[in-house]
Amino acid sequence: MARYQAILAYDGSGFQGSQRQANIRTVQGEFEKALGTLNWSAHAVILSGRTDSGVHATGQVVAFDLEWAHSADALLHALNANLPHDLAVRSLSLASEDFHPRFDAVSRKYRYRLFGDAIRDPLREKFLWRVHPPVDGNALSQNAGVFLGTHDFAAFGSPTTPKGTTTRTVTESEWKQMPDGEWRYEVRADAFLYRMVRRLVFAQVSLAQGRLSAADIQRALAKQGKFPTGMAPAQGLTLVEVMYGSKDPI
Amino acid sequence: MARYQAILAYDGSGFQGSQRQANIRTVQGEFEKALGTLNWSAHAVILSGRTDSGVHATGQVVAFDLEWAHSADALLHALNANLPHDLAVRSLSLASEDFHPRFDAVSRKYRYRLFGDAIRDPLREKFLWRVHPPVDGNALSQNAGVFLGTHDFAAFGSPTTPKGTTTRTVTESEWKQMPDGEWRYEVRADAFLYRMVRRLVFAQVSLAQGRLSAADIQRALAKQGKFPTGMAPAQGLTLVEVMYGSKDPI
Repeated sequence: MARYQAILAYDGSGFQGSQRQANIRTVQGEFEKALGTLNWSAHAVILSGRTDSGVHATGQVVAFDLEWAHSADALLHALNANLPHDLAVRSLSLASEDFHPRFDAVSRKYRYRLFGDAIRDPLREKFLWRVHPPVDGNALSQNAGVFLGTHDFAAFGSPTTPKGTTTRTVTESEWKQMPDGEWRYEVRADAFLYRMVRRLVFAQVSLAQGRLSAADIQRALAKQGKFPTGMAPAQGLTLVEVMYGSKDPI
Repeated sequence: MARYQAILAYDGSGFQGSQRQANIRTVQGEFEKALGTLNWSAHAVILSGRTDSGVHATGQVVAFDLEWAHSADALLHALNANLPHDLAVRSLSLASEDFHPRFDAVSRKYRYRLFGDAIRDPLREKFLWRVHPPVDGNALSQNAGVFLGTHDFAAFGSPTTPKGTTTRTVTESEWKQMPDGEWRYEVRADAFLYRMVRRLVFAQVSLAQGRLSAADIQRALAKQGKFPTGMAPAQGLTLVEVMYGSKDPI
């Protein structure tokens, strides 16, 4: 028996989130089904963190214990042959036997994609949020830095454990302009609160549409003001990377 | 009663092609359902041409007759409010009463997207063909021009009417390299045979993987050789534009 680590990619549209739940199609559930075809007998796989219903991933990390007589590469291909079309293993390797994708992670990075358009656009709206009225891209770019550093993000999400801390450290927060009117937000932190990225995006879009001021956001970060609730839709969000420092470079 | 022309966009994944068929979800069927909510009474809408099951569009053109008391803009928004999430009207205007999207079209343009990767990639494979072994991009770029001009494309598709001509005039045939290993093929012709773009792409990929020679393709174009059958998958293909010359600029 050995522990393996794998990077998973999925189109979140067809999953009700990542965590296994009875009688519901989830990433963990489908992954464990594929492992089951390889005589996997452990109790559960471990994910780096939860993604909500409809949220995508290109860099979700999972660990599992398996008796496997062949190469890691052969295991990757065996899993991909048994996984559904919207979920795949992108890379796979042996891990140390105490590797834990959630506890050992030192940072997570998410990407959020949006574009401005008054009219529905089915192909783009599969993976991007259509925003109207259009956003002021300069406002997005100039204000994103306000989240950098260590703050109490209680106004922007819920703790991941009951009564857990709502303090997080954001080390990257940047908007990039892409072709065809797309704006792409990349944000990295040690960890995120539930729904935090979607709330950060919603607040920034509200600002860039003139419905909120930079001072409103600063007050919310300082816990000195109430914050208008709102959350950007799931389909624009992708978990792109989980980092493990020197311990378990995956 | 007036005739309107509209540009439709759709994610083809959820449609069994464009043409109405009983008890099957098609683009035409869903569009006529939305029109039905606006007291539409004509027999059928007219499309610029057929797209196969799974093929997308950003520039499908449709015409229909409707009694409508408000503006074209109001009609666009009324239709979009009644169309499903994977189908939308991107623009809409009044047309001359004899405008025919198929007979009046002077050219059609398609785009095909692919990338090379040995490992499945669910997010990209929604709209791109994953090709393995990887293609030689220079071979794609350098050979695409062979299809330009007027040829008998019988080796690359079936006529659109029984015993119809298989001669077509290609005016654009070009591969562009995109970020992240993507290659994008853009091809324009007066009209296309059934499955023609997907067969052109398959042949070019076979060439760029070293499984076919430029001479093989030239012989097939000259109808002097048999051609290995094969068709690139539907999800990489998008109908991007239909042109109408000076008559009905849409």
